[in-house]
Amino acid sequence: MKFTVNRLEFIKSLTDVQRAISTKTTIPILTGLKLKLEAKGLTLTGSDADISIETFIPADDDKAQLQVEEPGQVVLTARIFSEIIKKLPEDVLTLEVTENYQTEILSGNASFSIKGLNAENYPHLPEITTEDTLNLESDVLKQIIGQTVIAVSTQESRPILTGIHLTIKNGQLSAVATDSHRLSQRKIAIAADNVSYDIIVPGKSLSELSKMIGEDAAQVEVRISENQVLFKFNNTTFYSRLLEGNYPDTDRLIPKNSDTEIDFNASEFLASIERASLLSHAGQNNVVKLALDTENQKATIYSNSPEIGNVEEELKFQRLSGNDIEISFNPDYMKDALRSFGQSTITISFNAPLRPFTLVPSEDQEHFIQLITPVRTY
Amino acid sequence: MKFTVNRLEFIKSLTDVQRAISTKTTIPILTGLKLKLEAKGLTLTGSDADISIETFIPADDDKAQLQVEEPGQVVLTARIFSEIIKKLPEDVLTLEVTENYQTEILSGNASFSIKGLNAENYPHLPEITTEDTLNLESDVLKQIIGQTVIAVSTQESRPILTGIHLTIKNGQLSAVATDSHRLSQRKIAIAADNVSYDIIVPGKSLSELSKMIGEDAAQVEVRISENQVLFKFNNTTFYSRLLEGNYPDTDRLIPKNSDTEIDFNASEFLASIERASLLSHAGQNNVVKLALDTENQKATIYSNSPEIGNVEEELKFQRLSGNDIEISFNPDYMKDALRSFGQSTITISFNAPLRPFTLVPSEDQEHFIQLITPVRTY
Repeated sequence: MKFTVNRLEFIKSLTDVQRAISTKTTIPILTGLKLKLEAKGLTLTGSDADISIETFIPADDDKAQLQVEEPGQVVLTARIFSEIIKKLPEDVLTLEVTENYQTEILSGNASFSIKGLNAENYPHLPEITTEDTLNLESDVLKQIIGQTVIAVSTQESRPILTGIHLTIKNGQLSAVATDSHRLSQRKIAIAADNVSYDIIVPGKSLSELSKMIGEDAAQVEVRISENQVLFKFNNTTFYSRLLEGNYPDTDRLIPKNSDTEIDFNASEFLASIERASLLSHAGQNNVVKLALDTENQKATIYSNSPEIGNVEEELKFQRLSGNDIEISFNPDYMKDALRSFGQSTITISFNAPLRPFTLVPSEDQEHFIQLITPVRTY
Repeated sequence: MKFTVNRLEFIKSLTDVQRAISTKTTIPILTGLKLKLEAKGLTLTGSDADISIETFIPADDDKAQLQVEEPGQVVLTARIFSEIIKKLPEDVLTLEVTENYQTEILSGNASFSIKGLNAENYPHLPEITTEDTLNLESDVLKQIIGQTVIAVSTQESRPILTGIHLTIKNGQLSAVATDSHRLSQRKIAIAADNVSYDIIVPGKSLSELSKMIGEDAAQVEVRISENQVLFKFNNTTFYSRLLEGNYPDTDRLIPKNSDTEIDFNASEFLASIERASLLSHAGQNNVVKLALDTENQKATIYSNSPEIGNVEEELKFQRLSGNDIEISFNPDYMKDALRSFGQSTITISFNAPLRPFTLVPSEDQEHFIQLITPVRTY
């Protein structure tokens, strides 16, 4: 195996593939990066068994200027290999695999020789045979992930809740996540009337995917099999395993009506919550209290840490109606939820001090909802 | 005590003072920040017993717009206080100390109330009575610190070596640091013929000082007493304790002549060392080897990690003369030394494989020297 390639283009592919490679894997060969050189181009593969990423550098790519001298394949320790590539002195590099997978890397006057492994021992990537392909706008996909992944559970006690539940039916994609204290749900119309899917994708996979999809990819192609999902954009293919099991029925958790409603600018309310949480974080209980007084049209937030002190702030709002209520909640859940709305005006709807409350964009209350369960403070 | 002040200007003073405040102190009140309000202005003080920093906001400062309503003093927990100030909603803030040092902080609709402490219990800053003042250009002071602090020891086994040895005599300032494996020495002429000092300042103090001296300070005023040194610039006063004891005689460590000399561009040589150290770091021995062949006019660097692989690079140089030599050293020491020369051309002078070698700017070999002790590799 021997090739020459533009170093900066090679680094881009390498950086993408490295997202899947963990140094903590229990399968030693997965700390490596697989390079496979064919006449048509060079394929880089990284995997941590949950996520696998493949990037392809075509032989005819103008920027990469790949010169295929001798096809072949090898696995190289990803961390040290990528450090070497990043420090090489020149704009191009030549890589050659010699006897016993020993690999020479040349650039300018610098010459590295590192140990490689037999690529035959590298696990095979899952095969996804389905022909059904779904196309999503990449920015929409990134938005959906960002808005729901916040509610994914980080506890391994209920593995199913570490995923995002994606259902595709009647031309609608719905994404839901909940860690049982809060819930995020986002729905969008998609141009795919004839397919229906119901899958649970690990939240971690979707976070990584979201970070990888660059500005330059307009569309992401999605293909789903029984236990794998594949996302394809530009010359990158991203595989994730699916979580097995039944996702809880989340529809029944969302309250249908409310007793009190308030409209806030999401980012102004966020700033107030951030101030209040300074003291809640300093104390034992990470709780802030919101008091809504509809008669006097006053909304006030409080937090108190016996060791440090307290904070009180009267909030600006756009509209307040219904019954008076005092409700306590974890400000970190509120911060995550508010950030997902950006600058929009949101409507928060309450029932009772211990019943979950919801946040929706005031302009479109149907397609996006954040739900938070309050905290009992007595 | 009560005042109103521009929030951003207050944050600047606060950030400077916080550099001295550690959360790990054994003296609880030193986790606090002292505020002292007088008719002439507001003084902020932070200290970790080794370093003390005082900043002053004058009552007549146009930007700070300080309004002194009632003089007084208080000590507030630095961490939470500064977080609160940074998150306040408006451009101005009002601070008022009420009963039992309880402190109210108001800005817009937000109102914080935090516990304060009696400032009478805060340690007094050292008094420096000397009238002798030394003025240094701030960029020269920062350069001297940066060029020598790299060789300061981080081991507490010989405390004296954790300092920089500053001597002022006959209009010359000399700064020396050594951790016994390497040494940095810098000399400059200063406009102070009539004073002479010999002090050891903790390297950590000088690093912090260097970070604090901003672009806006042209001159730094230095005053030295028996066990303290004071640096004053703009409205900031920086105190550091001095280290007690005798600094070793470093002059005798510097070789007077050499058998082999080579001239490199410091930054090009640095890049080569960084590549070689990728493999030395990966292995057990963090060592790289430089081989100079004067007959064939070749300079080559090698490094080898039995587990990973090896690297070899032929180096570009400007001049090579004297005897052939092969010498092994810690590449991290070399990197620190090379960075201190920036882009200049340097001369490296060798005697024998186990004798210390020196790096000096080729243009001015008298005033700046880095010395490194080689490593025995057999």
